[in-house]
Amino acid sequence: MGGRHATKDEGLIVWQESPLNVETPTAMLLGDRVTGVERFYVRSHGSLPELDPDAYRLSIRGMLERELSLSLLDLRNGFEHVTVEATLNCAGNRRKQLADVAEIPGEIVWGDGAIGNATWGGVRLGDVLRSAGVGEEDHGLHVAFEGADLPDEEDVTTYGGSIPLAKALRDEVVLAWSMNGEPLTVEHGAPLRVIVPGFIGARSIKWLQRVAVQSEPSDNHFQASSYKLLPPDVGPDEIDWEKGVPLGEISTNSAICNPPDGAIVDSGMVLVEGWALVGGDRKVERVDVSADGGKSWVQADILRSDEPWSWSIWRADVEVGSETTELVARAWDSAANTQPENPAHLWNVKGYANNAWHRVQVNVSAD
Amino acid sequence: MGGRHATKDEGLIVWQESPLNVETPTAMLLGDRVTGVERFYVRSHGSLPELDPDAYRLSIRGMLERELSLSLLDLRNGFEHVTVEATLNCAGNRRKQLADVAEIPGEIVWGDGAIGNATWGGVRLGDVLRSAGVGEEDHGLHVAFEGADLPDEEDVTTYGGSIPLAKALRDEVVLAWSMNGEPLTVEHGAPLRVIVPGFIGARSIKWLQRVAVQSEPSDNHFQASSYKLLPPDVGPDEIDWEKGVPLGEISTNSAICNPPDGAIVDSGMVLVEGWALVGGDRKVERVDVSADGGKSWVQADILRSDEPWSWSIWRADVEVGSETTELVARAWDSAANTQPENPAHLWNVKGYANNAWHRVQVNVSAD
Repeated sequence: MGGRHATKDEGLIVWQESPLNVETPTAMLLGDRVTGVERFYVRSHGSLPELDPDAYRLSIRGMLERELSLSLLDLRNGFEHVTVEATLNCAGNRRKQLADVAEIPGEIVWGDGAIGNATWGGVRLGDVLRSAGVGEEDHGLHVAFEGADLPDEEDVTTYGGSIPLAKALRDEVVLAWSMNGEPLTVEHGAPLRVIVPGFIGARSIKWLQRVAVQSEPSDNHFQASSYKLLPPDVGPDEIDWEKGVPLGEISTNSAICNPPDGAIVDSGMVLVEGWALVGGDRKVERVDVSADGGKSWVQADILRSDEPWSWSIWRADVEVGSETTELVARAWDSAANTQPENPAHLWNVKGYANNAWHRVQVNVSAD
Repeated sequence: MGGRHATKDEGLIVWQESPLNVETPTAMLLGDRVTGVERFYVRSHGSLPELDPDAYRLSIRGMLERELSLSLLDLRNGFEHVTVEATLNCAGNRRKQLADVAEIPGEIVWGDGAIGNATWGGVRLGDVLRSAGVGEEDHGLHVAFEGADLPDEEDVTTYGGSIPLAKALRDEVVLAWSMNGEPLTVEHGAPLRVIVPGFIGARSIKWLQRVAVQSEPSDNHFQASSYKLLPPDVGPDEIDWEKGVPLGEISTNSAICNPPDGAIVDSGMVLVEGWALVGGDRKVERVDVSADGGKSWVQADILRSDEPWSWSIWRADVEVGSETTELVARAWDSAANTQPENPAHLWNVKGYANNAWHRVQVNVSAD
């Protein structure tokens, strides 16, 4: 274990050393479609657990024909090895735009870089659950995960969360021990994490210790309380978690990575680049870019890949005039959903799931 | 066959007698969650074909182990009978709000009532395709449908469209001969239509004659050209269909049915009612209603059902003051997608897929 940790020296934004929370500057997101581990964002809620891989056991339990306790060798030798290229996107990514609307107390004010795309290698969670005799027809059940990290929050013993069993049985959900062909590093969940493509990053639980098939969603703090989308009238002093919707599948989203916010650009044609991402089985169908606040749009070229769980990288040549003050992007998915215009209408007290039009301010040079 | 046709006498809005195009006034949409045939919208592109049920044969062909020609009796006797409660929503529903932004030439200016929810009975399309030896692993293939209607458009011989094979094999996709327990009427596709829950109504092809499994989407006019979402810069004189995205899964949407647009209401608490609908495997998670243009919102009570392909009917008590001029509704789905605010940013030359915030004007009585 070990591996290369993301640090300030690499040019990353270190929000907190402990718990380790690190953001990738947007300019470092582009280039290869796959994000190297040295520039991949880190979101953690407690100190990083150092687990002994030889002593490690994964517990599989709950509404199954048989409960299992699996070593890493059991997983490696017992199941087909697979990889999935998948983008992880923190539910709090793009929080800054919401925090500019109204205060979001107690949360990291992530910019646009709590996102990354990697190739995750391991075995299918579904294969493991089927080997434990899960019923394929058990629609309506849930799969709860628990990690080994001890969150820095009162009355919270472990980090956890859950996903519907129907999702857990899909081929793309992987118990991963490798990232981009290298052993998983501690900060990314070594020795084993689950990867749930298309869901908020918080459901891809790191340092995975327990998997339980059960009739209800997890009652862990991070499923039952935090990581819920609350209505706009719920403020920080009166959080009634029952009013919130647990976040799962991610919304249709995009961001401009280049030019960066505040850049000086020459008037004329400017190359604009960024990412777009949708959840579920939907695809990114179109990305629009505007240099006049949404009055007119041009369509970006989307660099297509055959990886359904990967973000889409896009590029557009946009005409910028002396009156241009910002560039705007929005994505459309294959269900004809697009991003809402105004973050003020998306504000929620935890600052989750912002997918308002992405905007960067630019200064057009006068020459 | 025959059955009860929707007519002006029933209080419906008859946009055209031939092709028959009939809208349900929004006030008639509520009540039972299931919409009676006598008030169900009708969208057709040509004259209604009168097919002889005894002579009727459904052709199943293409990339299969064996091609089939099935009578209605073959379908009834050969496959398990199923029902699905599913909402059909015309891709042009709510077009009026877009037409108020800029002209949409040559299209019916549907209000909010090109939608209805019914129980459809028949057999699973997937069972029929599997009996013809379709490969379960043939991801990436498409299933094309052709109807018997002859559209009133130049150079168009039949009405058709297609869906991905992966969708066609799902349990909810049904070859239907009944609607709400009664034989399908001519205007709704007798003797047989396909029902594709979660997709735009245009893909639930009526008077179904041919089903083909093929490597590409249908090249029928209504798949390859019409029913595409075009970018906002494409105007009526310069339609480049290659720029469009074929519509399939429907976007997250809602509408207020009561009070109706233009209603006089007393100040104080007003009961607001409507529907919400999302595509795919997502659910309606929340409906917000505002009496102040979106500055503040209350959450509606959603009348939950166990029918995953049915719309959600919702109700909210909203405080209306003397300064209130309109009521606004928006839905949120389980992927944290919500409706965009402004229809101006959704305008497209065919007027499809409008899911902007729904607004009704109200006049508050002065007492």
